[in-house]
Amino acid sequence: MTFAFALAATNGAARAGTLLTAHGPIETPVFMPVGTAGTVKAMTADAVRATGAAIVLGNTYHLMLRPGAERVAALGGLHRFTDWPGPILTDSGGFQVMSLAKLRKIDADGVTFQSHIDGSRHRLTPARSIQIQHLLDATITMALDECTPFPATHEQARASLDLTTRWAALSPAAFVPRPGYGLFGIVQGSTYPDLRAGHAAALAAIGFDGYAIGGLAVGEGQPAMFAAIEATVPHLPADRPRYLMGVGTPDDLLGAVARGIDMFDCVIPTRGGRTARAFTSWGVANLRNARFAGDARPLDPGCRCPACTRHTRAYLHHLFRAGEMLGPMLLTWHNLTYYQDLMRGLRAAIVQRRLHAHIEAVRAGWAACGEIA
Amino acid sequence: MTFAFALAATNGAARAGTLLTAHGPIETPVFMPVGTAGTVKAMTADAVRATGAAIVLGNTYHLMLRPGAERVAALGGLHRFTDWPGPILTDSGGFQVMSLAKLRKIDADGVTFQSHIDGSRHRLTPARSIQIQHLLDATITMALDECTPFPATHEQARASLDLTTRWAALSPAAFVPRPGYGLFGIVQGSTYPDLRAGHAAALAAIGFDGYAIGGLAVGEGQPAMFAAIEATVPHLPADRPRYLMGVGTPDDLLGAVARGIDMFDCVIPTRGGRTARAFTSWGVANLRNARFAGDARPLDPGCRCPACTRHTRAYLHHLFRAGEMLGPMLLTWHNLTYYQDLMRGLRAAIVQRRLHAHIEAVRAGWAACGEIA
Repeated sequence: MTFAFALAATNGAARAGTLLTAHGPIETPVFMPVGTAGTVKAMTADAVRATGAAIVLGNTYHLMLRPGAERVAALGGLHRFTDWPGPILTDSGGFQVMSLAKLRKIDADGVTFQSHIDGSRHRLTPARSIQIQHLLDATITMALDECTPFPATHEQARASLDLTTRWAALSPAAFVPRPGYGLFGIVQGSTYPDLRAGHAAALAAIGFDGYAIGGLAVGEGQPAMFAAIEATVPHLPADRPRYLMGVGTPDDLLGAVARGIDMFDCVIPTRGGRTARAFTSWGVANLRNARFAGDARPLDPGCRCPACTRHTRAYLHHLFRAGEMLGPMLLTWHNLTYYQDLMRGLRAAIVQRRLHAHIEAVRAGWAACGEIA
Repeated sequence: MTFAFALAATNGAARAGTLLTAHGPIETPVFMPVGTAGTVKAMTADAVRATGAAIVLGNTYHLMLRPGAERVAALGGLHRFTDWPGPILTDSGGFQVMSLAKLRKIDADGVTFQSHIDGSRHRLTPARSIQIQHLLDATITMALDECTPFPATHEQARASLDLTTRWAALSPAAFVPRPGYGLFGIVQGSTYPDLRAGHAAALAAIGFDGYAIGGLAVGEGQPAMFAAIEATVPHLPADRPRYLMGVGTPDDLLGAVARGIDMFDCVIPTRGGRTARAFTSWGVANLRNARFAGDARPLDPGCRCPACTRHTRAYLHHLFRAGEMLGPMLLTWHNLTYYQDLMRGLRAAIVQRRLHAHIEAVRAGWAACGEIA
């Protein structure tokens, strides 16, 4: 079993492919639900499977603090722990150390920080991050990076990127190769095209099983994000998967797939599911809105999820107004189903070489009655 | 389709029966999960079905305030609204008006109160309570009662009971008979055997499709509760189901079934599911306890629920420690499965006339390693 990526079709810059892993195949473009602390929030593993998800995320930062990587390993790894035998990608911890940890201190060899849970002191180095991900039994391991803050001057972005390159260069040696397991590097460079291009080339020279684009969707806006993708993609090996980290809205996914991205993760559908924000074929809507109180229609008439096939908009509205957990449960299930079906539609359109027309049709649907997002 | 109750077997005072309703049959003794506001908390309807539940509860008080009985009726009734085509019992609102509403004022004809949600003014009378339950399309309608507070003097309990009798007498005329639908009266009388006996006889004289015992599990303790049941049951018609409201712990269920009770509802398994309190064949335990942090065993090895067949105690512990919704979701699923299987075991033992030995065996299991409850 190799960690192989095969392209099935291209349409402009967009690609449809298949990634073969030790834990099963992944058809791309793919959206990966976020399972930060060993669970996709408000979803059983069976429910995640029912949405059609092929791979889920786990978080090195959260899991190393609680329940601990060694504990997860003793319990048989993250697949058994979470009832998810399929592929799992774990992030390196770099992003969460920057956004969540207290008193973090970065040096040339790694980062020392205090847990946001109990204040305990921890250290992550490129080797320790990879070791933790090995203990978790991650199918796809991410090399430790420094997620460059936004905004950053060219000089700041350059310095940050150099640290990530240094850490990336140490990563392949720390990774224990196993058939069907892969190691990805993370391209930084903020919104500077020259830095993005240069860093992509630098990582490609090191050689990874896949390449992520990090440090985007952090406030730069969609046009700047798309520009950064366009500056990066041509410098990545065409025969390796490309993963845009932490993105995004449905419209972000359309634009990024059209620009050659194969993989995505984002909390938007799951967080939205807990805050009554529904993503549908007719647009985005907040189910707490009074206009849904008596609405006997299914949330999204064409959707196959239980929220849509079993219930009315009025019921979902009621659940959120009453503060019932079933509201987040059903809407998370719907949103993830919508994201999966959106990606499946994009893949089919790429294979049939009609991506542009398909994207126009999806956008026309969104304009029908919801807010635009 | 009649609302028929047939006894399949008896064992001492205990009974195994079948209740035929417009929405399906119910084998007794039966435990009814509580779906206060149109959802069994933390459970999809599919999950409730998977536990083996045959009937669920809804609450007149909560549903009249939000989303409103007329709205539920316009949306096709509570069965369609909640994706539960099976039998539904709704309580009368009496208990919740006493425990939740603000500024309640009882008079001879009903009760006026303010909503705990928005302070709006509402009135419940015996006829309006039954009308609301009709709008909800309840399979089993409860007559409005005054739930006597505990403790109460004999005089207070008598006065309260007289009001309930007065309201009960008005109820059959307000109930629209439909094939397979039933109306239950509620016996009060606090912990006074003479009042319980007299009230049971008074309600039997009015004539209902079933008889509930209310006003227990309110602080009187298990011995007093069992004594009140023993004082009541002989005065209820043997050919009608007997429903002990708001009870109880697994041990309460054993004792009450042995004393001739057929139906139960209680928030204990669902509330416990949200607060890490696990009910198992080896006893009761709090899953937040550190002793479970590395426990690789299933929660209850013989249990068929997803929490037990797919996960470890260590994973459930982790979910509760991390504040993840999946903890309450999985443990509610387990607790309700445990309650259903407990009732199923009691029924089988009654049919085989070995209830006493079965109860001893269940209790011996609980003494094995958990706390006793």
